[in-house]
Parts: sequence; structure tokens; C-alpha cells
Amino acid sequence: MSELRKDPIVDRWVIIAAERGRRPTDYETTAPTPGGPGCPLCEGNERMTPPEIWALRPGGSAANGPGWQLRVVPNKYPALRVEGSTERRGLGMFDMMTGVGAHEIIIESPDHDWRMGDGPPEAIQPILMAWQLRLSDLYRDDRLRYCVLFRNTGAEAGATISHPHSQIMAIPVVPGRVKSKLKAARDYYARKERCIFCDVLAQELAMGERIVMENDHFVAFAPFASRFPFELAIYPRRHAQDFTEMDEPSRTALAEVLHHSLAQLRPALGRPAYNFVLNIAPNPTPRPGKPDYWSTLELDYHWHIEILPRVTTVAGFEWGTGFYINPVAPEDAARFLRETVNEPREARSDG
Amino acid sequence: MSELRKDPIVDRWVIIAAERGRRPTDYETTAPTPGGPGCPLCEGNERMTPPEIWALRPGGSAANGPGWQLRVVPNKYPALRVEGSTERRGLGMFDMMTGVGAHEIIIESPDHDWRMGDGPPEAIQPILMAWQLRLSDLYRDDRLRYCVLFRNTGAEAGATISHPHSQIMAIPVVPGRVKSKLKAARDYYARKERCIFCDVLAQELAMGERIVMENDHFVAFAPFASRFPFELAIYPRRHAQDFTEMDEPSRTALAEVLHHSLAQLRPALGRPAYNFVLNIAPNPTPRPGKPDYWSTLELDYHWHIEILPRVTTVAGFEWGTGFYINPVAPEDAARFLRETVNEPREARSDG
Repeated sequence: MSELRKDPIVDRWVIIAAERGRRPTDYETTAPTPGGPGCPLCEGNERMTPPEIWALRPGGSAANGPGWQLRVVPNKYPALRVEGSTERRGLGMFDMMTGVGAHEIIIESPDHDWRMGDGPPEAIQPILMAWQLRLSDLYRDDRLRYCVLFRNTGAEAGATISHPHSQIMAIPVVPGRVKSKLKAARDYYARKERCIFCDVLAQELAMGERIVMENDHFVAFAPFASRFPFELAIYPRRHAQDFTEMDEPSRTALAEVLHHSLAQLRPALGRPAYNFVLNIAPNPTPRPGKPDYWSTLELDYHWHIEILPRVTTVAGFEWGTGFYINPVAPEDAARFLRETVNEPREARSDG
Repeated sequence: MSELRKDPIVDRWVIIAAERGRRPTDYETTAPTPGGPGCPLCEGNERMTPPEIWALRPGGSAANGPGWQLRVVPNKYPALRVEGSTERRGLGMFDMMTGVGAHEIIIESPDHDWRMGDGPPEAIQPILMAWQLRLSDLYRDDRLRYCVLFRNTGAEAGATISHPHSQIMAIPVVPGRVKSKLKAARDYYARKERCIFCDVLAQELAMGERIVMENDHFVAFAPFASRFPFELAIYPRRHAQDFTEMDEPSRTALAEVLHHSLAQLRPALGRPAYNFVLNIAPNPTPRPGKPDYWSTLELDYHWHIEILPRVTTVAGFEWGTGFYINPVAPEDAARFLRETVNEPREARSDG
């Protein structure tokens, strides 16, 4: 059973997920993994994963066999397990919690080599729907206070399996990084009676130079204070607190923006490794008899996506300060991405 | 001129250090660099660096030529420059500041292949003295509100030159990560009238299982909530606010602890890449006519060192939450490091 430990000085939790039987020297950087018989996420290898939680099977094929377009399975080696209660306890001045949570894998395509920037954009829509379904289902469990959905693409971004997949980790506390954003939004609203995310978006749209792509529902931009070269943010154009309530026209629009954003990174950066993070609000379900300072009943949020290409290395300066050094001005990155957007599909297909 | 930009939502600054003339595709991961004629930090190549700020030349050789044991030079490609004033300004809802600061390189040895875990420990003492000299000199400039000293060792840790060196970045604001620690220390003191770092150390010493090495002046331990496998912290045993006031016996003791800690990582992890961060207090010098909430005149600190081996990859989960997943319990890491400490030097020299 893994354990959550809180740093005794700053608001930072760590999941100690010690895997027994591994030697300390076993932590090597991973390389891309081939598709086929050895890939646990490829079609035909369904027995290599735990039984599926949900799947999209257009031909009506049986669960846990081939014939699917998308599958959701529990992580075979979860950092957190869904059994048990979230028991908090102290040990002297240290705080810890049992490692209750969930860790799911969304297998986004049966094709090992498909990438989210490959066409057509419509291929992304069922993935968005699967994300919505799983996130709303996980938030039915009131022990799970926060869900983060992410994709690690490429070994430099921490992917251990190359087959296209996203992951959801449901955790029993609201993490410090999310609390900072919620607190900023609350403080800003108290001062201005406006959403800080809406205002950031309005400012970016007014300035225009960092906008990469926009449609009726979403705007992709290189944020003013981008930490990384070619960092991108995608915001719903209209205030939206709940990702799981996104409707069909919005899904179509988001698929389009995601597809283009990821496709555009290729002429800029080759086929870059990147981390993708969906930032949503904490679980709004109150827990009977427990205080819930960070439920969104009294807060508000504006969900958004971050795409973080991994072309620079986080080093001592960043670890020591939380500052980042970005060698590419976001205005330059946005211009580069805008200028390549209308290239014919063929020119991008090598990326 | 680079520019500091503040994230409009959270307390995070970014240095936009756009290097003109580089193409966006030029950001590749670096590999180890060879010593000799091409290495700007090797002995004999002094003309490849800017003129030295300070050097240790036991034979009395002339500045900017060979014959040195240690040299301090400005970074040839600094992220921040020392000229100009720290002008803050807004742009709509965005905040920025001119990129004033300093960026220095401490070349720790003329030998390209020397590593801090190589013997003898005495070789580390002049490095510690150089760190003290430069940090106290930089804090004489009241525009520089914080100095971070770090080492990036190995390409995975962001080192672009393999020659042994540390770096100091002096920046015009106190970074959010440091403010969090200062605030935690102040709040804890208000409640308990004790230093939080002293209490963490007392707790670690009482429990014992995460202690790696200790002597009269310092304790090295694998912190309770370690983010990374084999993460280490080194704390002065007695409360110490000011790193630059460390005396000769303490330098000897710190050299011993540093040498052993780094040497011990080798049997555990091969020759790991790591980031090393010296956490010191902000500049205590007040600025005439300016508020100074984060000077240490009204706060206190307990300086400490963090050693962060880079054997796991920071990925989407960490970016989204600020949580970390650590697959090695710090108790296991500490036991492993304690057990290998007394191996003969020869057994480690391949590492």
C-alpha cells in the first residue's frame, strides 16, 4: 500500500509508492516501446491489462477482447489504490495519509503509432467524451477530492509506454498547485467581481500577439509568462466551471483546437515530447461531517488545458526558486505556430 | 535584455531570455562535453570565458591565465545582466520587470573529470569558501533580493558543460518557493516559538531511520517526504541563519558530509545526474524607501542544501498537481546509503 506524505515545511504532498523487490539501481530512463505482441495497450493484447472499466466498441464486440476504438482500464501498477478509507495520521511533526485513490489509463486508439496531432480531428472527440465520463464517475466517490488528467508523450516527458494513452489520477486531497489557483481566483473575484481566467483570456485576445488559434468555443495561446518554449494554454472562451458538462459542439471545437495545436508543434520542434494537463475544479461533492474548504461550492474555476513541450531541462535554478528560464519569447512561439498552421497536411505528416 | 514576467494567476516568475538568431528547433537535449581545447572551463582556455571575478591561485599566477585551483567568472551567456535598474511595470493585467541580476560560474577544479564525490574531501573546502565570498559580495547590491546557488551535474540534470562547476543566479525578487518556506517558518515560530527547520531535524534525528550521515556540525538525511529516489537534505545541526558566516570548522565538516553524500550515491545509482541547491535567506539589506516584506530582518531562516538525483522524470501528474510520486521510500534509500558508506574507496572509484 502506498502512502501519502506531506512535506513538513511547504504544502506539498508526495506519494511514496515503494515497489518492493526493485533494486535502487532499477530506475533507468525509458526509451520508446514497440507496438505488437509486447505492447499491453495494443489491440489483441487485452488480457495484458486489468479488465476494462469502459470501452467504445462500435461493432458491439465483447468486453476485454479486440474490436474497440477506445478502452479505459485501471493502471496495472497503480500509484494509488481504490480500496480502504483515507485515514490521516501524524508521526511527531510529520503528516501522512493512506494512499487511497484511483489511477486509470485511457487507451486512445488501437493503433500504436497514432498521435493526437494526426488527422482527422474527429478522432479526438470520443477521447474527450471518455474523459468526461470517467471524471464525472470518479467524482461520485467523495473520498476522491481531486482528479488530474494528463498525457505524457515521449520518453523525455516520462512516458513508459509509447502507445497513445492518457491517464487519470484521482487523489484524496486538493493539491497545493490547484489551491493556489483557486485562491488566486477567489481573491481576484473578491476584488474585481470578475473571473481571473476570463480576464487573462480577454487580455490575451486584446493583445493578440500570443494567440495561436481560436474558434467559437476555444482559444489556444502561448501564455504571457510561459515557463517553457512553445508552452500552450487552451481556455474555453466562455466561463466554464465544469469540464464534464461540455456539450457536443464544444467537444467538436476542442477537438479541432487540440488537433491543430499538437500538429503545429511538429514543424516547430520536430516530434516533441510533451506533457498535457487538464486542469479541472476539485470534487464539488461535500463529505458529510467534514470541512471542505476547497470544494467548489464556495469557489469557482475556469477549466483549462496546458501543453508543456519538453525541450528544455528543469535544473537547479528552477528547483531552488520555482522560477523558470524560457529561451523562446511566447510572442515568437505563437507567431511561428500561426505561420505554419496553414501548411498542407502532407508537410506535417513526417513529424 | 531579458525580461522577468509574473504569471497573472499564481506567484511564479519566468525569465524570458530570448536568444535572437536561434531557430525554435535549436533546443535539443545536450550530451556530455569533452575536456581539452574545446572546453571553455578547462585550464589553458581562460580566454574563452569573460575576465575572472575571483580566483584561487596558490602559486600566485596572473589573472586570466593558467595556474589556478578555482575560478569565478561571469556566465558568458547570462540569463540576467547586472546593468540597469529593476524597473517594474504593468501591461494591462500583466506584470513584468527588467531582467537585472547576476549569473556567475564557479569553476570548481582545473580537472575536467573531477567530481565532488571524488577524494579528498579537503578539495571541497575552497569551493565552499568561494561560494561564501561571492554570495556575500552579491548581497552588497541591494537590487539583488535573492541568490540561488546550484550545481547541475549530468546532461539529464540540465548541465550543458560537463566540466565541474556551480552557478549563482542573483535575482531582483524573492521567489515564491523561498517565500513559502519563509512564511512557513514565520507561522510556525508564531505558534511554537521554535524554528521549523530545527524541529524537522530533531524529529529526523529522533526517528533515525532516514539519517544518512552526521558529524558535529551537519546532518545528511533522506527527507520524510522526499520527492525523488535518493533525494538528500543537509542541514546545519545548530540553527544558522547566514551561510556566509559559516566558520572554518564548519566548512571542514560540510566538505566531509558533501563528499560522502555524493560518493555514496554512486553505488546506489551508478553515476547519477543530479541537481544540487543551496537554500539561503534573502538579501537582508533594506532598500531605502521601499517596502521589504521578505528581507530577513523580520524573518528567520535555517539554510540548507538539497541534492536531487535525476533518475525519475517529472511528468504530467507532477505538473498538474505539484504532487510527486517517489518509487523509493526514503527509509530504504537511507539504509542503502548508510550500508555502502564504509566500503573502501576503490569500490566507488568506477562510479
